[in-house]
Amino acid sequence: MDKTMQSRPLPLRAVRVTDSFWQREMDLVRTEVIPYQWEALNDRVPGAAPSWWMHNMRAAARRNAARRAGKVWTVPAQAEKLSFQPLPEKGTQPDPDAFYGFVFQDSDGYKWLEAVSYQLMRRPDAALQATAQQAVDAVCAAQEPDGYLDTYYTLGLREKAFTNLRDHHELYCLGHLAEAAVAWHQATGRDDLLRAAMRFADCCAAQLGREPGKKPGYPGHEIAEMALIRLWEETGERRFLDQALYFIDERGRRPFWFDEEARLREGAAWGGPTDGSAYHQANAPVREQTEAQGHAVRAMYLYSGMADAARLTGDDALAAACRRLWHSAADEKRYVTGGVGATHVGEAFSRPWDLPSDTAYSETCASIGLAFFARRMLQLEPDSRYADVMEEALYNTVLSGMALDGHSFFYVNPLSCDPEACRTDARLAHVKPVRQKWFGCACCPPNIARIVSSLPAYAYTASENTLYVHLFVGSELNVTLNGKPLRLRMTTAMPWDGEASLEVLEGSAEGTVAVRVPGWSREARMSAVTLRSLLTPGTPECAADEKAQTEKDGYVYFTGTWEKGDRIEIFLDMPVRMLKANARVPELAGQVCFRRGPFTYCAEGADNGPDLALCRVDAERLQAFPENIAQEPLDVGGITVTALKVPALKAVPDDALYTEWAPDVESPCTLTLIPYFAWDNRGENPMRVWLRR
Amino acid sequence: MDKTMQSRPLPLRAVRVTDSFWQREMDLVRTEVIPYQWEALNDRVPGAAPSWWMHNMRAAARRNAARRAGKVWTVPAQAEKLSFQPLPEKGTQPDPDAFYGFVFQDSDGYKWLEAVSYQLMRRPDAALQATAQQAVDAVCAAQEPDGYLDTYYTLGLREKAFTNLRDHHELYCLGHLAEAAVAWHQATGRDDLLRAAMRFADCCAAQLGREPGKKPGYPGHEIAEMALIRLWEETGERRFLDQALYFIDERGRRPFWFDEEARLREGAAWGGPTDGSAYHQANAPVREQTEAQGHAVRAMYLYSGMADAARLTGDDALAAACRRLWHSAADEKRYVTGGVGATHVGEAFSRPWDLPSDTAYSETCASIGLAFFARRMLQLEPDSRYADVMEEALYNTVLSGMALDGHSFFYVNPLSCDPEACRTDARLAHVKPVRQKWFGCACCPPNIARIVSSLPAYAYTASENTLYVHLFVGSELNVTLNGKPLRLRMTTAMPWDGEASLEVLEGSAEGTVAVRVPGWSREARMSAVTLRSLLTPGTPECAADEKAQTEKDGYVYFTGTWEKGDRIEIFLDMPVRMLKANARVPELAGQVCFRRGPFTYCAEGADNGPDLALCRVDAERLQAFPENIAQEPLDVGGITVTALKVPALKAVPDDALYTEWAPDVESPCTLTLIPYFAWDNRGENPMRVWLRR
Repeated sequence: MDKTMQSRPLPLRAVRVTDSFWQREMDLVRTEVIPYQWEALNDRVPGAAPSWWMHNMRAAARRNAARRAGKVWTVPAQAEKLSFQPLPEKGTQPDPDAFYGFVFQDSDGYKWLEAVSYQLMRRPDAALQATAQQAVDAVCAAQEPDGYLDTYYTLGLREKAFTNLRDHHELYCLGHLAEAAVAWHQATGRDDLLRAAMRFADCCAAQLGREPGKKPGYPGHEIAEMALIRLWEETGERRFLDQALYFIDERGRRPFWFDEEARLREGAAWGGPTDGSAYHQANAPVREQTEAQGHAVRAMYLYSGMADAARLTGDDALAAACRRLWHSAADEKRYVTGGVGATHVGEAFSRPWDLPSDTAYSETCASIGLAFFARRMLQLEPDSRYADVMEEALYNTVLSGMALDGHSFFYVNPLSCDPEACRTDARLAHVKPVRQKWFGCACCPPNIARIVSSLPAYAYTASENTLYVHLFVGSELNVTLNGKPLRLRMTTAMPWDGEASLEVLEGSAEGTVAVRVPGWSREARMSAVTLRSLLTPGTPECAADEKAQTEKDGYVYFTGTWEKGDRIEIFLDMPVRMLKANARVPELAGQVCFRRGPFTYCAEGADNGPDLALCRVDAERLQAFPENIAQEPLDVGGITVTALKVPALKAVPDDALYTEWAPDVESPCTLTLIPYFAWDNRGENPMRVWLRR
Repeated sequence: MDKTMQSRPLPLRAVRVTDSFWQREMDLVRTEVIPYQWEALNDRVPGAAPSWWMHNMRAAARRNAARRAGKVWTVPAQAEKLSFQPLPEKGTQPDPDAFYGFVFQDSDGYKWLEAVSYQLMRRPDAALQATAQQAVDAVCAAQEPDGYLDTYYTLGLREKAFTNLRDHHELYCLGHLAEAAVAWHQATGRDDLLRAAMRFADCCAAQLGREPGKKPGYPGHEIAEMALIRLWEETGERRFLDQALYFIDERGRRPFWFDEEARLREGAAWGGPTDGSAYHQANAPVREQTEAQGHAVRAMYLYSGMADAARLTGDDALAAACRRLWHSAADEKRYVTGGVGATHVGEAFSRPWDLPSDTAYSETCASIGLAFFARRMLQLEPDSRYADVMEEALYNTVLSGMALDGHSFFYVNPLSCDPEACRTDARLAHVKPVRQKWFGCACCPPNIARIVSSLPAYAYTASENTLYVHLFVGSELNVTLNGKPLRLRMTTAMPWDGEASLEVLEGSAEGTVAVRVPGWSREARMSAVTLRSLLTPGTPECAADEKAQTEKDGYVYFTGTWEKGDRIEIFLDMPVRMLKANARVPELAGQVCFRRGPFTYCAEGADNGPDLALCRVDAERLQAFPENIAQEPLDVGGITVTALKVPALKAVPDDALYTEWAPDVESPCTLTLIPYFAWDNRGENPMRVWLRR
């Protein structure tokens, strides 16, 4: 492990995104998603299922007040074995003292607060901050005197807290609380939520651990691992790192705690012993795990925490486990859209090479988790393979999760969609042919909000002496190299074209700027240019010798003295690429998909008519690939994308179900492909990423 | 409708199967399946879940005796909303007075009795008949004084009988009882079971019908329609035909009875109104139905009854509905293995053209039902298209349902199977990679037993003046043409080769012999030969002119005088055929399958190694199709089949998940294909019917 290559994201405040593509997405989150979600958290969206978030927080605050006042409080009945607490019966008023909704409902508001905080770092907004303060105050008031903070148990049988870590998400809520608290602290300087998070973390640590008298438990749904590490980084309190490391290392040890706690709880595990539960990544100690398994979001969050821990502790064995799990997830189980988790059963990874298009789960949150994991692997060891996957996830499935108007969301991201089949076929019940307004389990929309709002953390990371450029995003940024500040500007035509320039606007520093060479570029060229060389007659314009230039693992490292006017000129060719899948993927045999730059493309009914399934690309005309694939601007749902025009053939089916083999009767046609993220913005219609060849 | 073309199966006693292929299957049923099932019905199979059949019958008999004696009888609690009645708790003895198992458990024994009866018609067997008499006696003793006969209600709340026709299978049990009773009467001359069936039918008719005071109900699971027609044919009692016609015509009328009865039962339908329930084919009057929908076995049984009714009543509108539903099932929703019902959700038909291979349901019983329906369409209007499908079902999915040793059974018949995936993937939980010993819901094994034991009814039908030869099965048969008996012998190399000869052994009659021209034969030749022509010098050997020969709808009609020594020489070429599916079947695009004669072929791991999914047929070498497909005898699980050797290519995969398109690196190989019915007799291994081309 080369610790000198490790890096951390630039602070969000240090980067201002200026390009129209990402500004638009970030603004959507600010103007559409965040206000809508605030209404949702307060159960004020007409026609939508209530969130119960504010209801639960306020009820918990009253419960705390009653306890302080020594008042009698009747605990409403709870359905302990259900993750969703039954709603009030029709026609009756909700019990103001009862917990409603999913047991992890608290986390919805934390994710919203995190996204708000990131937006406040983009641009101060007193009104938004005041609204968010209401949420923060509600959270703080809901916290119990001992620091406990999970409204499901506060409103129910508090003595049962920490008795069902596997299913009841207390530590998941802790994780999201910590993430929000750190962001809120960074955005506002206020430590109210930070103190709440620290107290809840301490409350958990008092119960859980290897010390005598504690339970050797760990999260049923991971996230606390990476969140506690952030809490440590923000507060400098080492105990939070230790707590994260404990969660990571205790996981999957025998005897399996999830079985133990079930036995303690009621003499038997629900649904029998978990046998370590691969679903929860708890079937073996994490250092012994080799295959990405189980619930995909859980897995991604765990691996992200592991990568953080490996980097911060220099733990080579943990880093090796991260690499193995990365290989399994990214190289054997990843959709070409940057999605992971092929099966809806358990929202989980399937076996290697099982990547069905139509029944795909590919949850938006899992793709977000893949970006988390990729960024952390980049921080651990810069390698453009990680960045390629991170970019693929961000520009495809993550963005696909949200409509271009910010009003509706995909939870599931199929790679082919026949709307009629989705509506009528119970095997496709999880696949929605159009984005939905909101979900009862609203994990994806606020998760999109927080990752989009924190995009700069994925574009740039830095070490003491190196700035890493992972994504090409129009932006201005402040970075410190070897203690000296630099102000730079990235100008780029991305994501639609591959020219870019990174220029020093202010400052002077020695150090390295490392620029990723994307896997999609075949003839990338980069060079450092200094004003001084231009000013010195007889010096070649491209004074590459002034900056020592090396390439390693898909990054070009420019090292030297950086002064105002210095710049790195970047040219990334962006050819249309026709990909095939490994022959071991039975689903995709004989099929191709098209990519250009960061985008995976798809054919949609809106451009190509309803009979997409009858079309295949014309291998003969594609002999002249990619010359005869035209690229044209196309307006899709209010934005202009670069569409691809692919020569194709459309079968003219007869009536017979089975006939003697003969070439199909086909007529030539042209398929118009658009970037995957932009599909389903023109009404319900069929879509396919993979096309027969 | 041309009623002169209509026909009925030859009586089973009139046909003796002599060919080794079918004798083997029929003997397996007699020597393995029937004795095993008797043990199963009596809960005497070690390690197998009890059937409870005899238990329930005996308990019902005691209940009747107690009622006669005026004794108090405590009714055990029943779980009305479950189709499977909970078993005794572990470690406790079963309640001898309680009903256990599926609500339709009675039918298991009826199916067994039907199969036994068919075997007794093949060959008398006093011991087997004595055993079966025990079952018959048990049934008769279980019948209540008013004729009611369903042990679930006899052992429970009898007053709730006929209150849940949709889910509780009383009329399904009536149907199987009637089928068994007719077969038992034909086999033994005994009318004990026949009287029981007639009394139960009358008991049902007293409750159900359009007359005032009756409920306008009809079967939730069809079969009574065709069974009551058989009961009419056997007894001559017209009321049973009327009852069948009532069930057919009442079905799907508004208001939907299944909703009405739910409302009457408890104020609400379970799970909400059925909206006519396409699952039960009850969403519209049957004459208005155009698409094969819902539970595939239910659908096939209904359509079979409709075809019987259309033929026997000369009902053109009903015949037209049958043709439409046939078209939907056979021409848009049929697997190339003669299976139907593509989705495990509801064991049901999916939408047209949705024919997935790996998640296929293709229940054995549904394929049996397809053969029922096809035979009845043939009886209605001889057309070899029906016979082709009937043959396809019988020689592929029906036979696939039973292992070559008769000891294990498939319920679900996939067209591709990856055993590892079946074991680990919940989406494939319904697909078993190996046949199972017995099923809790044991519908398929006894259904195989009864159809295999009655094979002659599918091979031959006859009208007053015409013998129809639908299948080519080595056999001797007695038929009456225009009142004159003929004894004939079919000699054939089927199913492995297409030579056959049908010769008159005894008798003299005028009339027609109609011989099917199978769809799989390209150059079928048939001719009638008489001994007389051989005896008359100067007369050509092939005296085709002596029998007027015409062809219509895939049958060659030979009409004339038939005398001893006359014969029809049949030559059916049996080329290897390479089929493709309609371009509207997305699952099968770019794939082919192979057939020869009645058999659909598949590639199995036992012959081709574990990496079947990496192989595709070699289109280039198959330019010389079918010349370079060798045909070789191969021993599979104790029988010799004709295997096909198909030139193929096997991909050599690299490690990358996605790469720029380039032709796969492939090595030539030869795939060995075997008939589908014979797969999975050499241990667990992968299998594929459709192969990439």
